[in-house]
Amino acid sequence: MKLYQQVADQISRQISAGVLRPGDRIPSVRKAMRSQDVSLATVLQAYRLLENRGEITASPRSGYYVSANWAGLPPEPRMSAPTKRSEPVAMSDLIFEILESIKSTSFVPLGSAFIHPSLFPLSKLARFIGAAARRMTPETMAESLPPGNRELRRGIARRYLDSGMTVRPDEIVVTSGALEALTLSLKAVAGPGDVIAIEAPTFYAAIQALQLCRLKALQLPTHPREGIDLPSLATALDKQAIKACWLMTSFQNPLGSLMPLEKKKELVKLLARHEVPLIEDDVYDELYFGTEKPRPAKAFDHKGLVLHCSSFSKTLSPGYRVGWAVAGQFTQQIEREKWMTTLTTNIPGQAAVADFLKQGGYDHYLRGLRRSLELQRDELLRAVGRHFPAGTQVTRPDGGYFVWVELPESIDALKLYRMAMDNGISVAPGPVFSAQGGFGNCLRLNYGQPWTPRMHNAVATLGKLASSLM
Amino acid sequence: MKLYQQVADQISRQISAGVLRPGDRIPSVRKAMRSQDVSLATVLQAYRLLENRGEITASPRSGYYVSANWAGLPPEPRMSAPTKRSEPVAMSDLIFEILESIKSTSFVPLGSAFIHPSLFPLSKLARFIGAAARRMTPETMAESLPPGNRELRRGIARRYLDSGMTVRPDEIVVTSGALEALTLSLKAVAGPGDVIAIEAPTFYAAIQALQLCRLKALQLPTHPREGIDLPSLATALDKQAIKACWLMTSFQNPLGSLMPLEKKKELVKLLARHEVPLIEDDVYDELYFGTEKPRPAKAFDHKGLVLHCSSFSKTLSPGYRVGWAVAGQFTQQIEREKWMTTLTTNIPGQAAVADFLKQGGYDHYLRGLRRSLELQRDELLRAVGRHFPAGTQVTRPDGGYFVWVELPESIDALKLYRMAMDNGISVAPGPVFSAQGGFGNCLRLNYGQPWTPRMHNAVATLGKLASSLM
Repeated sequence: MKLYQQVADQISRQISAGVLRPGDRIPSVRKAMRSQDVSLATVLQAYRLLENRGEITASPRSGYYVSANWAGLPPEPRMSAPTKRSEPVAMSDLIFEILESIKSTSFVPLGSAFIHPSLFPLSKLARFIGAAARRMTPETMAESLPPGNRELRRGIARRYLDSGMTVRPDEIVVTSGALEALTLSLKAVAGPGDVIAIEAPTFYAAIQALQLCRLKALQLPTHPREGIDLPSLATALDKQAIKACWLMTSFQNPLGSLMPLEKKKELVKLLARHEVPLIEDDVYDELYFGTEKPRPAKAFDHKGLVLHCSSFSKTLSPGYRVGWAVAGQFTQQIEREKWMTTLTTNIPGQAAVADFLKQGGYDHYLRGLRRSLELQRDELLRAVGRHFPAGTQVTRPDGGYFVWVELPESIDALKLYRMAMDNGISVAPGPVFSAQGGFGNCLRLNYGQPWTPRMHNAVATLGKLASSLM
Repeated sequence: MKLYQQVADQISRQISAGVLRPGDRIPSVRKAMRSQDVSLATVLQAYRLLENRGEITASPRSGYYVSANWAGLPPEPRMSAPTKRSEPVAMSDLIFEILESIKSTSFVPLGSAFIHPSLFPLSKLARFIGAAARRMTPETMAESLPPGNRELRRGIARRYLDSGMTVRPDEIVVTSGALEALTLSLKAVAGPGDVIAIEAPTFYAAIQALQLCRLKALQLPTHPREGIDLPSLATALDKQAIKACWLMTSFQNPLGSLMPLEKKKELVKLLARHEVPLIEDDVYDELYFGTEKPRPAKAFDHKGLVLHCSSFSKTLSPGYRVGWAVAGQFTQQIEREKWMTTLTTNIPGQAAVADFLKQGGYDHYLRGLRRSLELQRDELLRAVGRHFPAGTQVTRPDGGYFVWVELPESIDALKLYRMAMDNGISVAPGPVFSAQGGFGNCLRLNYGQPWTPRMHNAVATLGKLASSLM
């Protein structure tokens, strides 16, 4: 971690611990230079970071103050420390039990992996899919075969322009959701027995995909704000044959970490030096709470080694199953695999999304969705701060719809999971986010649901159950 | 081959060769008994077979006559004779070239793998998908997650009842087309390096799927009317470790062969004795020209070793990507793999098909589709008989929408394929239907298109081009 980040984190911890409280003035830049023995530039950078995180607010000519927003919140968790072995992955029955529980709408869905459907523009999409299906001709059907509907690929390419990236429509392969893009990417770059570097914790679907492809996982230390630890990755690359990385660089599931732009650049450079492909799972990038969409690592890819995978499942509807890959050197391979596994993505669905991008007011709607998610995050964080036992740590994501909770070590998250289920509340327990066990005292909570008293009560119940397990 | 089949085939050949012509009386049962030195039962069975095939017609009290239908047709091809080695499979660039050519609607699509969209009830389906999308709620979305939409699974289960089979909705896993059901089935029963027994020739997608899963193919002799040769399969099972079979038991692509019911029963028994799973690709079963839907091998599966895979891509629309697997012992495994690879099948699409089954007049529409296909088959066969060079052999499928043409040995089907493409005609050349080369003088032709002068002219041109290559 860089010096300025250390300085910022120290102040963060003082805020979390209540040493500095909302409205308090934090040490002036000069004072901090002296007390920390660092340069002016370092302090300024640290304070800018804290400001970006929403932890402090600048007041013109009078200095920096602790914001009210995060007051009273439990502190953030630290970098994870997984074991250093790469291991074959075992499919966990627990994951499927949790996936089953999603299907019951009677649970308070804190364990869900989805956004609540009421936040999606489903009726507008329905009109588009009906109209698209009626328009279907031999020509539109043929044009929707891999690499996929041309208008849709144009629409996706245009959105890359907004991130300052030039992606041609013919570099895009449409898939049945990002998950298919990711599994086809895995198949394109690695074969049975190969080692894939992933984050710790990581999205359980990645672990499942590795298992299905008979790959080994090497989990690397991951920071809850800034993502995977590059020095650890560099060491691993030097020491062993790593066939590829699978990372979520923006609003990682489950941590919510956002890798800073410079770090993404460094990551791509590091991997390029080793000729190792990066599978970049970027399904949350549109759900940012800052001022602009975070650029992906793909933006710095000069060698075609980054396979950028995303979808509309987190922004329009998971039910339409429309995703894509921009796969650099591996584009043709992915297109062929698509032909060979599911042939094509639902054709009316492809056209409906293409039309929505063109005439559905996607940007306007996204702004509303982001606002809703941000407010729901604040509510969830406040509820966790209020109801969870002392010693709890929690992330403060700047996008996406998950927080990661580290409970005091004595609490068994699996036990808590079962107790919560008995109380009509679903949660995603930490162990399902690890290829090798671990995170036994962690939970992922979902704030992609409208905030209601029912949600609040569920968090309160969860907190009580957790305390009872201490 | 059984004795009665030999008797029947001998008469078949006399008809093909023009020794017996339409309207000719064939030898009486008594005469045949004497001349062939066989029993009464054998002759009667042989004649019944010929009658079922449409080659002869019984006239009450006056004997059997050669039917007009198949008059002047080239003879049928014989059993295939692939090499006896199991081999790793190499992905063929040619297949992708052909798949690309499908996308251009300017070709006469004799090489297509699809039915022409004008034969599908697309506007009715469009109404259903629009309505289903408008109806989507959190509940319907949750209920469409694996194993899939409940109403759809009920509808599929009801259709099995028509074949005298009891399949429970909870034994059905909905997939994104049959292709996904098949690849998930492969993954469920076999791993890298295992040997899978397949037909020769076989559908190229099966070969591709084996390649993608790093499996070895063992191609077995296959009869153009009756499917894979069971004695050859039995020998192979005794001699080597075969992990699974992947067969199309009804209207095989590309041969159009239909395994007789007794043979299906024997097949299941044989495989059960060796505890070897059968992946039964049964996407054409609804497209029968006989009086009733052929029952699948799955109907005789008492051990849960048959994975029955099908879809609505050949009967409603390939673009909706709705298929399923009934996977016996492997049901849970398939459901889990579905979660892990594409999560769920397009949700409005699932509901649209469910509604079509319930209220779309599916059976009525299917009757019309079958009639169209049967007439188109007759037209194509007649055109081939008229325009293709002497020495050509061609199958007479009783369902599906492909015929398999064996040209005189000196003709190179790949050369013919390229010449045809230059003339605006697509065909599927024999070599793409083999895991190990072979079928160099064969073609698969598609009659899933309305018959037009353009189609007729294309067949005439193809015949001329073929003759020029002799």
